[in-house]
Amino acid sequence: MPHVAIIVGSDSDLPIIKGAADVFEEFDVSYELTVASAHRTPKRVMELACDAEEQGVDVIIAAAGGAAHLPGFIAAFTTLPVIGLPIKSGALDGLDALYSIVQMPPGIPVATVGINNAKNAALLAIAILGVVDGDLRTKLHEFRKKMACAVNDKAMHLEELGIREYLAEKEKNGHHPA
Amino acid sequence: MPHVAIIVGSDSDLPIIKGAADVFEEFDVSYELTVASAHRTPKRVMELACDAEEQGVDVIIAAAGGAAHLPGFIAAFTTLPVIGLPIKSGALDGLDALYSIVQMPPGIPVATVGINNAKNAALLAIAILGVVDGDLRTKLHEFRKKMACAVNDKAMHLEELGIREYLAEKEKNGHHPA
Amino acid sequence: MPHVAIIVGSDSDLPIIKGAADVFEEFDVSYELTVASAHRTPKRVMELACDAEEQGVDVIIAAAGGAAHLPGFIAAFTTLPVIGLPIKSGALDGLDALYSIVQMPPGIPVATVGINNAKNAALLAIAILGVVDGDLRTKLHEFRKKMACAVNDKAMHLEELGIREYLAEKEKNGHHPA
Amino acid sequence: MPHVAIIVGSDSDLPIIKGAADVFEEFDVSYELTVASAHRTPKRVMELACDAEEQGVDVIIAAAGGAAHLPGFIAAFTTLPVIGLPIKSGALDGLDALYSIVQMPPGIPVATVGINNAKNAALLAIAILGVVDGDLRTKLHEFRKKMACAVNDKAMHLEELGIREYLAEKEKNGHHPA
Amino acid sequence: MPHVAIIVGSDSDLPIIKGAADVFEEFDVSYELTVASAHRTPKRVMELACDAEEQGVDVIIAAAGGAAHLPGFIAAFTTLPVIGLPIKSGALDGLDALYSIVQMPPGIPVATVGINNAKNAALLAIAILGVVDGDLRTKLHEFRKKMACAVNDKAMHLEELGIREYLAEKEKNGHHPA
Amino acid sequence: MPHVAIIVGSDSDLPIIKGAADVFEEFDVSYELTVASAHRTPKRVMELACDAEEQGVDVIIAAAGGAAHLPGFIAAFTTLPVIGLPIKSGALDGLDALYSIVQMPPGIPVATVGINNAKNAALLAIAILGVVDGDLRTKLHEFRKKMACAVNDKAMHLEELGIREYLAEKEKNGHHPA
Amino acid sequence: MPHVAIIVGSDSDLPIIKGAADVFEEFDVSYELTVASAHRTPKRVMELACDAEEQGVDVIIAAAGGAAHLPGFIAAFTTLPVIGLPIKSGALDGLDALYSIVQMPPGIPVATVGINNAKNAALLAIAILGVVDGDLRTKLHEFRKKMACAVNDKAMHLEELGIREYLAEKEKNGHHPA
Amino acid sequence: MPHVAIIVGSDSDLPIIKGAADVFEEFDVSYELTVASAHRTPKRVMELACDAEEQGVDVIIAAAGGAAHLPGFIAAFTTLPVIGLPIKSGALDGLDALYSIVQMPPGIPVATVGINNAKNAALLAIAILGVVDGDLRTKLHEFRKKMACAVNDKAMHLEELGIREYLAEKEKNGHHPA
Repeated sequence: MPHVAIIVGSDSDLPIIKGAADVFEEFDVSYELTVASAHRTPKRVMELACDAEEQGVDVIIAAAGGAAHLPGFIAAFTTLPVIGLPIKSGALDGLDALYSIVQMPPGIPVATVGINNAKNAALLAIAILGVVDGDLRTKLHEFRKKMACAVNDKAMHLEELGIREYLAEKEKNGHHPA
Repeated sequence: MPHVAIIVGSDSDLPIIKGAADVFEEFDVSYELTVASAHRTPKRVMELACDAEEQGVDVIIAAAGGAAHLPGFIAAFTTLPVIGLPIKSGALDGLDALYSIVQMPPGIPVATVGINNAKNAALLAIAILGVVDGDLRTKLHEFRKKMACAVNDKAMHLEELGIREYLAEKEKNGHHPA
Repeated sequence: MPHVAIIVGSDSDLPIIKGAADVFEEFDVSYELTVASAHRTPKRVMELACDAEEQGVDVIIAAAGGAAHLPGFIAAFTTLPVIGLPIKSGALDGLDALYSIVQMPPGIPVATVGINNAKNAALLAIAILGVVDGDLRTKLHEFRKKMACAVNDKAMHLEELGIREYLAEKEKNGHHPA
Repeated sequence: MPHVAIIVGSDSDLPIIKGAADVFEEFDVSYELTVASAHRTPKRVMELACDAEEQGVDVIIAAAGGAAHLPGFIAAFTTLPVIGLPIKSGALDGLDALYSIVQMPPGIPVATVGINNAKNAALLAIAILGVVDGDLRTKLHEFRKKMACAVNDKAMHLEELGIREYLAEKEKNGHHPA
Repeated sequence: MPHVAIIVGSDSDLPIIKGAADVFEEFDVSYELTVASAHRTPKRVMELACDAEEQGVDVIIAAAGGAAHLPGFIAAFTTLPVIGLPIKSGALDGLDALYSIVQMPPGIPVATVGINNAKNAALLAIAILGVVDGDLRTKLHEFRKKMACAVNDKAMHLEELGIREYLAEKEKNGHHPA
Repeated sequence: MPHVAIIVGSDSDLPIIKGAADVFEEFDVSYELTVASAHRTPKRVMELACDAEEQGVDVIIAAAGGAAHLPGFIAAFTTLPVIGLPIKSGALDGLDALYSIVQMPPGIPVATVGINNAKNAALLAIAILGVVDGDLRTKLHEFRKKMACAVNDKAMHLEELGIREYLAEKEKNGHHPA
Repeated sequence: MPHVAIIVGSDSDLPIIKGAADVFEEFDVSYELTVASAHRTPKRVMELACDAEEQGVDVIIAAAGGAAHLPGFIAAFTTLPVIGLPIKSGALDGLDALYSIVQMPPGIPVATVGINNAKNAALLAIAILGVVDGDLRTKLHEFRKKMACAVNDKAMHLEELGIREYLAEKEKNGHHPA
Repeated sequence: MPHVAIIVGSDSDLPIIKGAADVFEEFDVSYELTVASAHRTPKRVMELACDAEEQGVDVIIAAAGGAAHLPGFIAAFTTLPVIGLPIKSGALDGLDALYSIVQMPPGIPVATVGINNAKNAALLAIAILGVVDGDLRTKLHEFRKKMACAVNDKAMHLEELGIREYLAEKEKNGHHPA
């Protein structure tokens, strides 16, 4: 039984959404993923949204760029929490998507995360599921600790090496300096 | 038989949309006007959009502020030309509505006019109807002439009076200087 | 036992947040509300965030304007879902608050709603609580129906009266046309 | 007899406008295409605009970047529907062109589509022609169906393969992940 | 024989343009002022622009809001220096006008001044006329001195009174504190 | 001997800068205040900047709106720390001033605070003076505590009264709800 | 005797300013070009500005990116017409430079041209010089004609070849399609 | 005993912050540098901020991109001067970071420098330290002179070579023209 449904407006959004899939796999949260377009396949989107609740979906993530109506369109047809992920694309670099997703009218919210920040879309879904799933919340705490450790490890390494050597090492390992 | 259907996302948009109604009445173009919300009454919007063509509607005008999904939502369910009118509202002053309406994905266009420019939404609808209605196009030509005359009359008046007297006269007639 | 904790960064945000309080009262959802500033009382914010989970809080709503660090600051200290509400204020009209709240780094999401849209912050909290509370979800369905009915009533009324009479009636009842 | 006239402000806009030419050829709609500059060859633009109607043109598409006066300039000299296509160029990435095209004064509308969205400019022209051309509208319905099928095919393929394999296959076929 | 021609796109711009008229009168520079619209009376604009040079006009000031094509339209038909004055109006507060006026294509410049800054449009015209008119340049030097004196007088007054008394005095004289 | 010099570009900035004067008086920090314009009295600005150091000034605060060159102009002529305060004014609401003040070229920094945030300009100056003045730093600590207490008092009051009664009381005391 | 002085704020602006130098050479207008920084070498900028008039300079072009105070700084010290050229650079892509240059305070104008549009800076200088130099104006008329011919030649070529062959030919000649 | 503490929100900011490290080494100012994240390691940030004063730190530089809460978070826990450096990253190119850092609430200032301008962050820290350290201020004066000389050398070289030869020489030396 899936907990999370991910819907992307275009398959060009998939390289970004992969960041969410990775998180769900790391947390062992089941999800289903499909492509459906608010404007090209509106009836399918409507059906997906209408059926989600009784299919056992708990949270929906919808990703879209440009006019980015998909998350709001879905939210109009369900009372499940809908997380909107604005995708950077086109001349406005995702600002259009951000505004379109976050500025929903009073009555129909979409929980918006940062542009292209698929990881946060997934983590927000997990935090929502964690409201009733103690195991998930425990995993979230551990995830936070690992993140903190990773930052602290870098801090220790940087303090040992100094900035020049640290950057040199990073570059050698294939990270390009800005 | 109506030629134009106007749909506003909220009845707070009506004072703006009145500018379109005035134009249609001046041109003697029949229109119907209703309120329907992409997010609060999505099924009614869908029905309005799906039924428009066979009800003899030729052009649809959709006005909305904020996330402003209404025009794109309608365009997804009809092949009629859809004119989108962004309404100024909220903290972003209509910029959100403009981006959301104009930046539709390839495949589903919305003919966007300026923020709050209901008059142009109506005139664009009339220009579209004028593609096959010679009388309407004739009226458009006359409308243009009247507009030009009005500007030219002001020009003559201004050139006669000079700026000080012209502004004084305007203020006396109840126009507030900026 | 409270379900929702609302924290505003300044008591000047209270007239906006009242929109959320109204929703919670309509849905009979218990909430607690306080003022705490990420920059002026950071330790209290930290304590509120750290203690929320074991105090039985399920969802946190944090409202702030300007730099608007409050929601992200809280999210850093809890794994509960945090809803961020950007408040319109100052020279940038809430755009600074929107960016600061929504653009959180990967790892620590904030569920962002529209600028000044306190009603949606509350409804999103309810949708999240509804993931496990069937009664709440039922109430959400009813709320949606009432919203739809209200729009449809306006539509019928507008279609009967026409725009001129409708606007005249609205103005008589104290609504100012734009 | 051409139905659509396309005018670009610079031959550097041609790679974008090709997206419109492709659509017209797919729909078998005749068009003519030329380069004319509102500022460098204003008299030619004026003549093109003035003569369009009696040359049997039904719809004009005008594309321009930067100050992007071309669509409005043309609209000033004709009552035909004018579709404005903002081109992304220069330091402002087409935002200047978008504002300049869409924010026309009351009285002279330009039907604006998204930045660089030549495909939508063409489809909007076809929707306008479809108001009186039943065949075209039929083709539009078929086009919509094909678009929907393409999305649905991708959805099925993605649901079968899963995101990792889908992306791997796409990359193998020469699509670069973001 | 007029030195400067001022053209405003709408008589609603006159309260702003008065700031330019005041400057020309202070400098005893002859000017003519009219209303002409790039979109409503394009042929008259074209004639004004084409005839300006042989009518002895040396500099043209064109003011417009919104799409604000007027200055660029005029520049397309004359080689005289054209000063563009963006007018604040509508939902975008003059940003649309600024971009549309300043971002002219290579080949046809418009000398742009700040939004609503009619005084600077006039002073720029005078600086241009001053290139060959020594008397005007002398007056400009005197004007600069008077401006400097006015600032210095305020400085002395402020230093004497201190901020509280200075503001109190200003308010008493009818200046409203921010 | 003054510690801080405040220079405003126009006496219309004084109602804002009063917020800084109030802070300095609360902290008993001596300051001098004058009006000087980067463009209207550039030589006086230059002299003020050049002489500041030997006159015993430790920190300079410069406030300006619009193009807002004043802080950078001063910074070019002194090595003292210069704090730039962008003033909200004109069509761009202070965004122009913010960009112009903060985006200084490498080599000549200006310490920028928020738009119209005179209080923070003063507090930053005090923090800088506090680097060597232990008494000032002690006062800063006390100031922080008072701020925290004020927020906490409001929090307690709000928690006692509830939002409705709190807002009612505030309104009665002359605070207008948003 | 030079007619035009060009000052760039940094030698990194030279590749852009070359577009102005090319125009002056094409028109056989003498110019001098130097690097001077409003913030790094403010005294030299001041001297250049103060001495320009008596050195026979008629028009000054100042180019700068970022805070871009250079044109306004120069304008503060001379009554010659100053043309400001915003350079695209840094994170804001020249928007900071545009605002800083165009939004000068009332009293000290800068004639602003488009971002990176050095060609227009030069042509505006020539139009200003043309106010008294009939030969230059004649050259401007010829320049306009050549520009028009170049556009018309492209138009004829495009109309002959069609878009596909035209683009193919362009690409073969080393122009990359967008 | 360190004078300056530099904290970056992510080790991906290090290539930018290197510009500050270089300056401190040139001025022989001791600094310590670490990575700490306002959201991933909030407790460590809090400790760093709280302990800084008694560890002898005089000035803190905090660099962050995106929501960029780090500088404000630190400022909430210390009365030392905090310099905020917005890092360009993500879809908004650092505009989010700039707004989030500069728009701090009244009471808790952050001294903001330009996006990615690490050099200015360091020079501002040195100017602050220079308030009591005469040697540092002397070094600042020398640094300014060297900068001025470098610009003047380029000016002389450019005036000798002319733009073409200068650019050719630069390109030969590995500088790419824009």
